Amino acid sequence: MMESQENWDSSCDAGINETSTLNSEQYKKKMQRRKEIQEKRTSQASLNKGLIIVHTGNGKGKTTAALGMVLRSLGHGYKVAIIQFIKGAWEPSEKKAFSLWQDQLEFHAMGKGFTWETQDHSHDTKQALEAWCKGLEYIRNPEFKLVLLDEINVALKLGYLKVETILAGLEEKNANDHIILTGRGAPKGLIEKADLVTEMSLLKHPFQEQGIKAQPGIEF
Amino acid sequence: MMESQENWDSSCDAGINETSTLNSEQYKKKMQRRKEIQEKRTSQASLNKGLIIVHTGNGKGKTTAALGMVLRSLGHGYKVAIIQFIKGAWEPSEKKAFSLWQDQLEFHAMGKGFTWETQDHSHDTKQALEAWCKGLEYIRNPEFKLVLLDEINVALKLGYLKVETILAGLEEKNANDHIILTGRGAPKGLIEKADLVTEMSLLKHPFQEQGIKAQPGIEF
Repeated sequence: MMESQENWDSSCDAGINETSTLNSEQYKKKMQRRKEIQEKRTSQASLNKGLIIVHTGNGKGKTTAALGMVLRSLGHGYKVAIIQFIKGAWEPSEKKAFSLWQDQLEFHAMGKGFTWETQDHSHDTKQALEAWCKGLEYIRNPEFKLVLLDEINVALKLGYLKVETILAGLEEKNANDHIILTGRGAPKGLIEKADLVTEMSLLKHPFQEQGIKAQPGIEF
Repeated sequence: MMESQENWDSSCDAGINETSTLNSEQYKKKMQRRKEIQEKRTSQASLNKGLIIVHTGNGKGKTTAALGMVLRSLGHGYKVAIIQFIKGAWEPSEKKAFSLWQDQLEFHAMGKGFTWETQDHSHDTKQALEAWCKGLEYIRNPEFKLVLLDEINVALKLGYLKVETILAGLEEKNANDHIILTGRGAPKGLIEKADLVTEMSLLKHPFQEQGIKAQPGIEF
């Protein structure tokens, strides 16, 4: 099919008859194999288990992906607690969005702005421990299906919290409840303990490379 | 401080007096340097720009992080459109959660289940193109601040859509609007075009390694 760039641009039917790199028989076989693999995998996965989830790495999306899980959990009618270890407050847009679930969601912003604003290690350590104690209350509380410990990995990395403290607290989790721990630099011990670990890596960042401001609705 | 594991476990004040690896003067200096770097970066970032955002990689959180951005955008009062290229429908929890924003959110599930369910390339190609055309309507519509093209990268990878088609469509984006394209295997041309690219990598996955079922509130 000889479509020009112009056509691709203007006509949405341009590609309708494009031919595949596979003929339909090859394609059918390929998809059939995929289906079998998928069904095998699904049939093997039979356990229900509360998960310890870690979002780490230098990329975007660690907290954002956790908020997506919070949203799904709220949609299921579960109670959720969010503890913010670093940021000082809800972003207004998140506050407005989550205000619709006041009866299901508990939010505690325990950090006071970014850590480099305080420059007082004992003060920051005290705050991080207070945040952890609040989180542990919800971890112990069977009414809460999901606890998000947002940016706790940063508190661990900066030495505000000991990983042994956190690992011991995770032991108190109820069997079917979930805990998400976010932030770059998740310690090895936590990664070993976790069930689901995702690393967000930055391939391209507009703020660093293009001097673009953090955009509302995307970053906050 | 000589705290036993037992103390860490039971006492939330256990760590309150823990000493830092840095003395307070070193700590203050370190944080001061961080603050200067951060302020420099912020002062350099002055542009407002609608972003082309790609979430790719084999890890979790590509769609979930996009949903977190949708939530933030809704919280700002922006109109948002979501086009699902692969999945056949809203997950019930997402449907319930987003039903609170019916006046701001348009959702179109264009895929019919996972692609390996159909095993018909021309049918799948037609569906992907219909989904793309619907997405392009919203990309062209200045009322919509954010358009999420969910799993479109998979449609590109499977050859249902040509990357030239998508790149041409992205050119029609309004200057201050955002587009998020998710799915593993984002093509090179799309990554070059994008402003913000995050790769989600799987470090640990409970379903594959522990035979655990997808958990409500986390996966759906």
